[in-house]
Amino acid sequence: MKICIIGAGSPYTPELIERLATMTEELPVTEIAMMDLDEKRLEIMQNFCIRYAANLGFKVKITKTTDRKKAINGSSFVNTQIRVGGNAVRIIDERIPLSMGFVGQETTGAGGFSKALRTIPAMLAIANDVAKLSPDAWIINYTNPTGLVAEAIELHSKAKIAGLCSGGVMAAACTAEAIGCKPEDVRYEYAGLNHMNFSYNITVKGVPLTAEQFECVAEQFTEVDKDLILALNALPSGYLQYYFHTKKRIRKMKKRTRGEAVMLLEQDLYRDFADPAVNTKPESLKKRGGGGYANVAMNVMNALHNNKDSIAVVNTANRGVLSFLPDKAVIEVPCIVNASGITPLVQSTPPNAVWGLIAAVKNYESLTVEAAVSGCRTTALLALLAHPLTGDADEARILLDKILEAHKEYLPAFWN
Amino acid sequence: MKICIIGAGSPYTPELIERLATMTEELPVTEIAMMDLDEKRLEIMQNFCIRYAANLGFKVKITKTTDRKKAINGSSFVNTQIRVGGNAVRIIDERIPLSMGFVGQETTGAGGFSKALRTIPAMLAIANDVAKLSPDAWIINYTNPTGLVAEAIELHSKAKIAGLCSGGVMAAACTAEAIGCKPEDVRYEYAGLNHMNFSYNITVKGVPLTAEQFECVAEQFTEVDKDLILALNALPSGYLQYYFHTKKRIRKMKKRTRGEAVMLLEQDLYRDFADPAVNTKPESLKKRGGGGYANVAMNVMNALHNNKDSIAVVNTANRGVLSFLPDKAVIEVPCIVNASGITPLVQSTPPNAVWGLIAAVKNYESLTVEAAVSGCRTTALLALLAHPLTGDADEARILLDKILEAHKEYLPAFWN
Amino acid sequence: MKICIIGAGSPYTPELIERLATMTEELPVTEIAMMDLDEKRLEIMQNFCIRYAANLGFKVKITKTTDRKKAINGSSFVNTQIRVGGNAVRIIDERIPLSMGFVGQETTGAGGFSKALRTIPAMLAIANDVAKLSPDAWIINYTNPTGLVAEAIELHSKAKIAGLCSGGVMAAACTAEAIGCKPEDVRYEYAGLNHMNFSYNITVKGVPLTAEQFECVAEQFTEVDKDLILALNALPSGYLQYYFHTKKRIRKMKKRTRGEAVMLLEQDLYRDFADPAVNTKPESLKKRGGGGYANVAMNVMNALHNNKDSIAVVNTANRGVLSFLPDKAVIEVPCIVNASGITPLVQSTPPNAVWGLIAAVKNYESLTVEAAVSGCRTTALLALLAHPLTGDADEARILLDKILEAHKEYLPAFWN
Amino acid sequence: MKICIIGAGSPYTPELIERLATMTEELPVTEIAMMDLDEKRLEIMQNFCIRYAANLGFKVKITKTTDRKKAINGSSFVNTQIRVGGNAVRIIDERIPLSMGFVGQETTGAGGFSKALRTIPAMLAIANDVAKLSPDAWIINYTNPTGLVAEAIELHSKAKIAGLCSGGVMAAACTAEAIGCKPEDVRYEYAGLNHMNFSYNITVKGVPLTAEQFECVAEQFTEVDKDLILALNALPSGYLQYYFHTKKRIRKMKKRTRGEAVMLLEQDLYRDFADPAVNTKPESLKKRGGGGYANVAMNVMNALHNNKDSIAVVNTANRGVLSFLPDKAVIEVPCIVNASGITPLVQSTPPNAVWGLIAAVKNYESLTVEAAVSGCRTTALLALLAHPLTGDADEARILLDKILEAHKEYLPAFWN
Repeated sequence: MKICIIGAGSPYTPELIERLATMTEELPVTEIAMMDLDEKRLEIMQNFCIRYAANLGFKVKITKTTDRKKAINGSSFVNTQIRVGGNAVRIIDERIPLSMGFVGQETTGAGGFSKALRTIPAMLAIANDVAKLSPDAWIINYTNPTGLVAEAIELHSKAKIAGLCSGGVMAAACTAEAIGCKPEDVRYEYAGLNHMNFSYNITVKGVPLTAEQFECVAEQFTEVDKDLILALNALPSGYLQYYFHTKKRIRKMKKRTRGEAVMLLEQDLYRDFADPAVNTKPESLKKRGGGGYANVAMNVMNALHNNKDSIAVVNTANRGVLSFLPDKAVIEVPCIVNASGITPLVQSTPPNAVWGLIAAVKNYESLTVEAAVSGCRTTALLALLAHPLTGDADEARILLDKILEAHKEYLPAFWN
Repeated sequence: MKICIIGAGSPYTPELIERLATMTEELPVTEIAMMDLDEKRLEIMQNFCIRYAANLGFKVKITKTTDRKKAINGSSFVNTQIRVGGNAVRIIDERIPLSMGFVGQETTGAGGFSKALRTIPAMLAIANDVAKLSPDAWIINYTNPTGLVAEAIELHSKAKIAGLCSGGVMAAACTAEAIGCKPEDVRYEYAGLNHMNFSYNITVKGVPLTAEQFECVAEQFTEVDKDLILALNALPSGYLQYYFHTKKRIRKMKKRTRGEAVMLLEQDLYRDFADPAVNTKPESLKKRGGGGYANVAMNVMNALHNNKDSIAVVNTANRGVLSFLPDKAVIEVPCIVNASGITPLVQSTPPNAVWGLIAAVKNYESLTVEAAVSGCRTTALLALLAHPLTGDADEARILLDKILEAHKEYLPAFWN
Repeated sequence: MKICIIGAGSPYTPELIERLATMTEELPVTEIAMMDLDEKRLEIMQNFCIRYAANLGFKVKITKTTDRKKAINGSSFVNTQIRVGGNAVRIIDERIPLSMGFVGQETTGAGGFSKALRTIPAMLAIANDVAKLSPDAWIINYTNPTGLVAEAIELHSKAKIAGLCSGGVMAAACTAEAIGCKPEDVRYEYAGLNHMNFSYNITVKGVPLTAEQFECVAEQFTEVDKDLILALNALPSGYLQYYFHTKKRIRKMKKRTRGEAVMLLEQDLYRDFADPAVNTKPESLKKRGGGGYANVAMNVMNALHNNKDSIAVVNTANRGVLSFLPDKAVIEVPCIVNASGITPLVQSTPPNAVWGLIAAVKNYESLTVEAAVSGCRTTALLALLAHPLTGDADEARILLDKILEAHKEYLPAFWN
Repeated sequence: MKICIIGAGSPYTPELIERLATMTEELPVTEIAMMDLDEKRLEIMQNFCIRYAANLGFKVKITKTTDRKKAINGSSFVNTQIRVGGNAVRIIDERIPLSMGFVGQETTGAGGFSKALRTIPAMLAIANDVAKLSPDAWIINYTNPTGLVAEAIELHSKAKIAGLCSGGVMAAACTAEAIGCKPEDVRYEYAGLNHMNFSYNITVKGVPLTAEQFECVAEQFTEVDKDLILALNALPSGYLQYYFHTKKRIRKMKKRTRGEAVMLLEQDLYRDFADPAVNTKPESLKKRGGGGYANVAMNVMNALHNNKDSIAVVNTANRGVLSFLPDKAVIEVPCIVNASGITPLVQSTPPNAVWGLIAAVKNYESLTVEAAVSGCRTTALLALLAHPLTGDADEARILLDKILEAHKEYLPAFWN
């Protein structure tokens, strides 16, 4: 069994290796093909991963290539964790909106839009290779914006995709932490979009949380004010901070964006990875964040490969779960995953106060996918208008021009 | 046949008299009961209306009262055009949001919210009187925000209501003007909410507009930029300017709000109305604006009374017309009106770029109705959060406090 | 303005002439092209229509042709009233089911199925000619089964069609007769399929019928027992007799089918039409029945041509009106008709006891359309299985064989 | 942990004991309260079960009572497997329809209707006791008609119910048998109603069946002809035989009904159970049939008690899974079961040929529930009319009279 990692130069790769090493029975991987366009990072990471696997006692062939087709060919799973243009471009995604007083974040608002325009064509190219070379393979995607990537691939390619995010397990973790139970005893309903979702009707061993317990859970959150969580009677994705605390967050981001912080961190990180003496996850990785993806990915790959009926939160076509969204719109929802694919679970309607916001952002998302695929400026403008954070057309026009100009080399559809 | 006008001291009253005078065959009105709490305005308007009716040769008894029940009792139609707190309070609706950098307008955003909280309880009190005293009567409402008022009355009273707005005929008028045809030859689809709606698929005598013709129609609009109208391929309500040109409009409103302008205009206006020599609509009325309601009202009253199958744009329960909104949510849509009531016409989905925005605003509207009825601060805060123009909770909390404080005397539900 | 009549040899033609003669202002027809494949009937009817038009003072050129394309070319309206195979074949439609103990009727159950298989390809051929030669023309269809014909043409051609039936006005006529009011004062909701529909919530001048009044209306019906109508609290289409009184009706039909009766009647009828002394509708026509179509057709053609907003019951795509049926399924529902086309009115859900029956018959209808278009035997068998009157597969297989064999010459799709 | 069995005198009880004996870790049952109104059977079965449990090494207190409340009080699970009136009355359910030429079967058509009228009030009485005495307990129901019982309890009581049927695993068993794989490798979509459902899109380890394989699976079925299964491209519930092979099955049932066969079998069976020497399941039980329920019940009880996320086919509220049925209508569908309850999985639309049939039968079911609860004859008649097998009102009226008369003592709602 061969798997490949597209964007394998990323610091997320070691976690995958680590988790795969523990699952050799369920996922008998014999080759991990690491693919990246950044040859330097790829070299560093391959070498580190070989040392790390050896250290873990994980017997596997770890190859590297800059040829996407070669990596995909013969793979059972295609893990995609790309960043088109790298961290430098991420900072542009963040800084352009911030310079105009908008949220500058790589998945939300104008920054997410900017990233989506670059990422969707790249991910579609990968998907088309998968459909052609390994049609039975599943794309296991954690490339952001994962919801838009999933919608683009479901609508515009024949490849099979599981669009993942680690946010789906957050409510279980917080509840367990807050009231001192095991995460596996916690259940809840969950619905919305990637980074625009809500967890509600939380139970522990079938018993609904009391108001006091829910307050304790809410206190776990630093991203969104507790009184809002109590008012919503639901745990929002942390990314809701950009909607509910827009101005405060903009002020904070202006000082230093996440991309800027990451860029600094990664200098240390790759120096550590490159050190031939380092054969275990370096301390500097913890600061990088974004952990947890590998657990979600393993759960899903295991279920797909071994026909287990595991529950996982996946970005997948709505199919009637949210009655206020189109059937083909990709939503983020708990699903049963097995060898036959991904099947959503019915969820009751999300909190009464947020269905309109979810709809607005879904409308934006679908327009953005359409714009990224078509390269149509008008559709791109309409996408920004549809977004609650960038609805002012006079500003949106300027934003759009700046974004298209800044990322010109990555947006041939708009410039040819 | 008796009809009454609640809020009859308003300068909209003469237009009603004028139009009723031409329809004595269809609507054989023998008494018009004018009701207002502002005795001074009521006195002026009654006297003017008596002179005006005489001048028009309209034989009708025009009475006045400050007793709502007395006015409603025995009426076939209850025309409601109230302004709780009058123009002075309207300016507060406008100025509080503006002071914080938000849109200050009496139907859109925080200003509309503020007005809704005051108006809904007052309109429900009227509706309950109608349901009790004249259960067969129809409320003909043009009190804003008319969509929220209609939803409140449909959900919380047994009275029958036709929630009207003159905006429904705008696309016909503009098309006729732009391409030189008769308004009655123009047809189009129309869907959305009051002041959040779109006209599309315009035809003239069954022939779709050419792109060139549509451009001419778009040029009629000053509220929204032409390029956006072309991008949407639909005519937006003029109130979309507050969503698409938010910052520009805020800058403009800050100089002088509409309420401030109206207050000045009405000084002249009531002086004219009070002049015993004046027995026709004074010149100053033209500047007041808001005309056209009476035509819409006559069309609807005629259809209801005479069982005509007239088409009119009405705020009424969705009943499946917009698949992305709940069945009971009030929308603004073309309907057939006859003695059996109001039946929506199926419309194709509104432009792809705006369904999310409509959903977001509808979510806000329903929460606002709920807040106005319950007096629940949390629901009121969630309403502001749900609105695309006031979604920042840190700001919304302050806004809400200011609004509730400023209108304390009109909001007993919140303060008891 | 030219119109054509396809199947003009039918005895329905004179009624069209008669009604067109009264509407020369609204529909300034200068040529009526009569087309039929039965040259003998066509000759008789053309000559009669010329005499009849002269007698009515209706100045119009009445031409005849066996060339469909010639008739369609240049026509503004294409009236279709064909009977593929004529009356002799209708009797086969009726007698095959009856011989096996099933309902033998030309629109309901196996007889309707049999007729649909023959008629749909013929009507699609006409529609394709219309789409090509007179793309702006409307097909005004009363060829049965009109619901299936409309669905076939809406799904499989580009022609515009108004699928009509005189049944839509039945409830108004019965109510007027029963309680002594004018039909135009009556309103009601109406929903379902052609010959599988229900009229409910009847009002007169806006006032709901009392239980006593509704009982009087129910007494007007001879097709369905009064107690059932009261139980349903709705007026069913007369064709519901074949579902609710199946065995009784089969017994009756076995003695003499409607087709057999019509065949006898038409012998007299065509002898009368052929008599050069006859220039007015002969007495024998009254016995033929089926009157009333022309009124419905005139109403619709007038509305389409003159951009009137007339209400008419039309077979048209569901578009959400009946939530339990697919959006593209053709239903029979009140619509607004104007130059832009046909727009359904929202109707409340039909009586609680019949939505399942409507769904079952709609499922049958859609499968029958698919079978007629594809010539697929399996789909044809599934269609019979889906029908509540022919769901026994052992019987349905025999029925199907007999039907396909009997109509071999008209069913090339099944035999090539 | 106490559980109770209502209707414990039934021969299904030993299978429950047998399976519980193997699950003492997951379900640590200390008391099984056997309740029945038939004291003789109850005595025999209690004694047998005590011997059987001892033989199995299952340490548990097995009590008996005729007092329902006593049995329910303190139970964690209330297993319900009642037969109101016993086998003698079942034969009446079967014979009345057969005497008029209708299907005589205890769940389908008029027989199922008859059984439902008797059973629903009895099950509601149990549910009300559960809601009052053990509100956290789950009713584990296999009393037929299980779909109607579930809908009645969900709509008219506060008790929690899992409406089960062993039919949900049939497609896995048949596929495994036909192609030689393990049942746990098989997955499929499943939708419809109890005894009116379809399994489709079958996969084995994620690979769709080939046409040849599907043919082998279809050959496993004796109830429905293979060619129909191939035409449907889905495995129907065996009970579809009564719809697709109506006349043949009626002929067969007329000779000896299932109730008559069971009555004979049970004579042997209870003689065996009563024999003090018998401490294991007697041979005669195999002939009784109906096995498999206990497996399904254990799976569900285990999941509910231990918060496992197990998949089980359950009769539960639709909640949008089948778009053509109301949200509150109970359907039979795969669900995730855990301590928080029962959550349906989204299924793709059932085969195109059967949605109408499912809708018709659902309409019948909901009317039957309403009739059983209200005791309204008109609703009961409409229920029979809505059913595809009893739609002839002239026959249905006679059927209804006979049924109500025959079961008078069990139908107080209709006779008081």
